[in-house]
Amino acid sequence: MTAPLRVALLGCGTVGSAVLRLLDEQADDLAARIGRPVEVAGVAVRRPDRHPEVPAHLLTTDAQALVTRDDVDLVVEVIGGIEPARTLMLAAFAAGKSVVSANKALLADDGVALHAAAAEAGVDLYYEAAVAGAIPMLRPLRESLAGDQLRRVVGIVNGTTNYILSRMAETGAGFAEALAEATDLGYAEADPTADVDGFDAAAKAAILASLAFHTAVTASDVYREGISAVTALDVARAAEIGCTVKLLAICERVANGAGDSVAVRVHPAMIPTTHPLAAVGGSFNAVFVEAEAAGELMFYGRGAGGEPTASAVLGDLVAVARNRVAGVAGPGITTYAELPARPIAETPTRYHVSLDVADKPGVLATVAQEFARQGVSIATVRQDGHGDAATLVIVTHSAPDAALSATITALREMPAVRGVTSVLRVEGLS
Amino acid sequence: MTAPLRVALLGCGTVGSAVLRLLDEQADDLAARIGRPVEVAGVAVRRPDRHPEVPAHLLTTDAQALVTRDDVDLVVEVIGGIEPARTLMLAAFAAGKSVVSANKALLADDGVALHAAAAEAGVDLYYEAAVAGAIPMLRPLRESLAGDQLRRVVGIVNGTTNYILSRMAETGAGFAEALAEATDLGYAEADPTADVDGFDAAAKAAILASLAFHTAVTASDVYREGISAVTALDVARAAEIGCTVKLLAICERVANGAGDSVAVRVHPAMIPTTHPLAAVGGSFNAVFVEAEAAGELMFYGRGAGGEPTASAVLGDLVAVARNRVAGVAGPGITTYAELPARPIAETPTRYHVSLDVADKPGVLATVAQEFARQGVSIATVRQDGHGDAATLVIVTHSAPDAALSATITALREMPAVRGVTSVLRVEGLS
Repeated sequence: MTAPLRVALLGCGTVGSAVLRLLDEQADDLAARIGRPVEVAGVAVRRPDRHPEVPAHLLTTDAQALVTRDDVDLVVEVIGGIEPARTLMLAAFAAGKSVVSANKALLADDGVALHAAAAEAGVDLYYEAAVAGAIPMLRPLRESLAGDQLRRVVGIVNGTTNYILSRMAETGAGFAEALAEATDLGYAEADPTADVDGFDAAAKAAILASLAFHTAVTASDVYREGISAVTALDVARAAEIGCTVKLLAICERVANGAGDSVAVRVHPAMIPTTHPLAAVGGSFNAVFVEAEAAGELMFYGRGAGGEPTASAVLGDLVAVARNRVAGVAGPGITTYAELPARPIAETPTRYHVSLDVADKPGVLATVAQEFARQGVSIATVRQDGHGDAATLVIVTHSAPDAALSATITALREMPAVRGVTSVLRVEGLS
Repeated sequence: MTAPLRVALLGCGTVGSAVLRLLDEQADDLAARIGRPVEVAGVAVRRPDRHPEVPAHLLTTDAQALVTRDDVDLVVEVIGGIEPARTLMLAAFAAGKSVVSANKALLADDGVALHAAAAEAGVDLYYEAAVAGAIPMLRPLRESLAGDQLRRVVGIVNGTTNYILSRMAETGAGFAEALAEATDLGYAEADPTADVDGFDAAAKAAILASLAFHTAVTASDVYREGISAVTALDVARAAEIGCTVKLLAICERVANGAGDSVAVRVHPAMIPTTHPLAAVGGSFNAVFVEAEAAGELMFYGRGAGGEPTASAVLGDLVAVARNRVAGVAGPGITTYAELPARPIAETPTRYHVSLDVADKPGVLATVAQEFARQGVSIATVRQDGHGDAATLVIVTHSAPDAALSATITALREMPAVRGVTSVLRVEGLS
C-alpha cells in the first residue's frame, strides 16, 4: 500500500476525540475505502495536559504551524467558533490542503468566501457534520437533489430545544422547568443561549438555504425567535388543535411578482401531529424537504453527540481523501441564483391565537372584523363559553407576517378582548 | 458559455419522458450548476411513432449507434431489464461515456462487473434512481457513511406491496381484495409478480447490501418471500401485539465465530407501530439505517413515479456532468470486505405464531416444550380461551430461522394443536 494520507486534527473535545478513536478502530476499512491508509499527523489543542488519551508526540498548541506542515495532507477542524477557525482554514487552503469542518457558525457567516478560497486553491471544503449531526443532509442537497428545484426545507435541527419542547408536551411543564431538567441531564449547556434563543438553528438554516437555493444566505439573513417565550398554555393549545410545538428552521422559496425570493426563519410553531416532523422527539433531528420533482423527502437521525458527529466528519474525510488520491477536487457550491432575502414581515405565515373575551353577543364579530381589516382571513374559530367569559381559539389562513402581528397588536387593545393568552405560528396545516 | 454536454436517453416511458421534460424546464439551472449547458443528443425507443412529444429528429431505434456517437457525452439508461440495457451500458463505457441508470435488476445482477468496466474506462456509473426512487439513499451509503460501520439497513422499498399491506391494515381486507384494488387504481401492474413476490425488493436489497457492506451481493444471494401469503388474520394479529405488517428488505451484518457475514432477506414482517418504518404508508418508501457511530438514521420519500424517479436521475446526471467538466471520474464502489452471504437458515430471526389448541391443562406446557426442544426461547405468550378451544399467541426471542421453521413444522403435527393459524417474522421489537 502506498504512503499514508496524513491528517491534522484541530480541536480534541467530544467530537475530536471520537474522530481520533474511529480513525484508529476503523483504520483498515478506511484504507480499503480510500485506497491509502490514513494517519494522524498532529492534534492541535489549547491545553495538551488535558489530553492524556492522545500520544504526546502528536499534541501541539501551534495549530497554525500544524495546518501548513508539509507532511499534512488533510485538515479536520472541530474547534468551532469564528476565530481562530477561520484563519486556520484559510491557511490550510493556501497550503493546498482540503478541510473537513463541523463549524456551523463559521460556515453560516462566511461560507461563500471560504468556498471561494478552497476553489482557488483547488481543494475541498466539506462540512456535513455542521448541520443535523450524523444525518447525511448537505451532500444530498448539494448533489442528489442538484437536478431538482427545491421549494422548502423545514428542519428540526437543534436537539436541546427539541428535548425541552418534547418534555413540555409530555409533562405539561413550563419552559423554565423543562430547561432546568435538560440542564441537569446534560442536554442543555450551562449557558443555553445559543440553543434556546435559536442562534444554533439559525446558523444551520443559513447553510441549508444556501445549498438548497444556490444563493448566499448568512445567519444575519435569518429571522430568529427562540423558545423561551413558549408557555405551557401554548403547548396545551397546540394539542387541542391536533398539533405539537417544535422549533423549526424553515427555508422557503417564495414566488412573487418581481421574481422569487428566499425566506429563512427560525421560530417555534405548531405543526399537526400527523406531520412526519411531529414524531421527531427528544434529541433527534430531522429535515423535511419539498422539491418540485422529488416531492416530499425526510431525513432523520441523531443531530448531535460525539460519535454521530464524528461519523459525518469521517464520511467527509473519506470523500476528500478519495479526491486527494484521485488528484481532483469535488464540486464546490454555486450561488448563481442570487435570490433576494425576503424579510419576515413580507413572508406568508399562519397564526394560532387564543383570546380571553367577554361572552356577549357581537364579540366574535368585532374580533373577526379586526382580522378582516388587516387583510387576514380566518381558517377556523372555536368559541368556548365559561360564565361571563369565553375563550376564542383562532387559526388564520396564510397572510404576510406583518399583517398577522399587526392584528395581534390591535387585538390586545380591543376593549372586548380581556387578554391574548397564546400566539404561535402554525406550519404544515393543509 | 462553453459547448453543451450532450445526453443520449435510452428509453422514453414514464421516467424517460419526465427526464426529457425536466431537462427542458430546468435547462438554465442545470447549466449554472454544471458549468455547461446540457442538451439532448438523441432518444432511443422501440417505436418512434408512439412518442409524438419528442422532436422527430431526436428519435432513433438504433440505441447501440446512439450510445457510441461522437457527439454524445453522457448516457441515461431508463429501459430497464437485463438486455439490451447491459450491452448498451458496456458499449457506452467502452466509448468513454458515463452512464446514469435507474436499472435495479441489472445493477443487482451484475453491478460489480459493470462498475469494473466503468472504472477501466475512467467514467462514472451512478444509479440513485434504482433504489427508493427519489430518496437520496445510495449516495449517502457510498459517500456520507463511508467513514462508519453499518450494522443494518432495513427498507420499505416497494410501493405496490406497501400500498396493499397498508390497505389490508386499514380495511381488514384480504390480500386478493387489496391487490385487486391496487390494480384498479394503477398502483399494481397487470402482472404484479415482480412486486408482490418480492423480486423488485430483492434486487434493491442486493444493491443496498453491496454498498452498505463493501461486498458483492447479487439478487440470487437474497432470501425472498413475497406478500401473497399474508392473510387478514396475520394483519389482525399484528395489530393485537401493537405491530403492523410491512414487506421489509433487510440487510444485516451478522457477527459469528468465524468472522462476520452478511444476511440479506426480503419478507413480510410484523414491526412495532412505534418503529419509524411503521408510519410509512401507501406508496411511500423509507430506509432505516443502523451504523456504529451515526446510530439510527432514516430516509423517507417517494419510491416510484415518473417525476420522483427523474429527480434522482437528474441528480446523478448533474454529478456525472460535473465530473465530465472537471475531467475526472467519481469514486466507484469497493467490495474489499468480501463478507460471505449467510443463508436464511442460519440468520437469527424472531417469529410470531398463532395456534388454535384444545383448551385443557398441559397444552401450553406441551407447546412450550416443543419450542425448547428446538432451542427456541419464547418471549411472550398470550392464551385466550373460548369454549373448549383456546388461541395461543406466541412471540419468540431471536433464534436461527431454521430452528423457528422446524418448530412450526413440529407444531403443525402435534395432536394438541388444531391449527397453526398465523406465522410471521417479527422485526424491530426490543
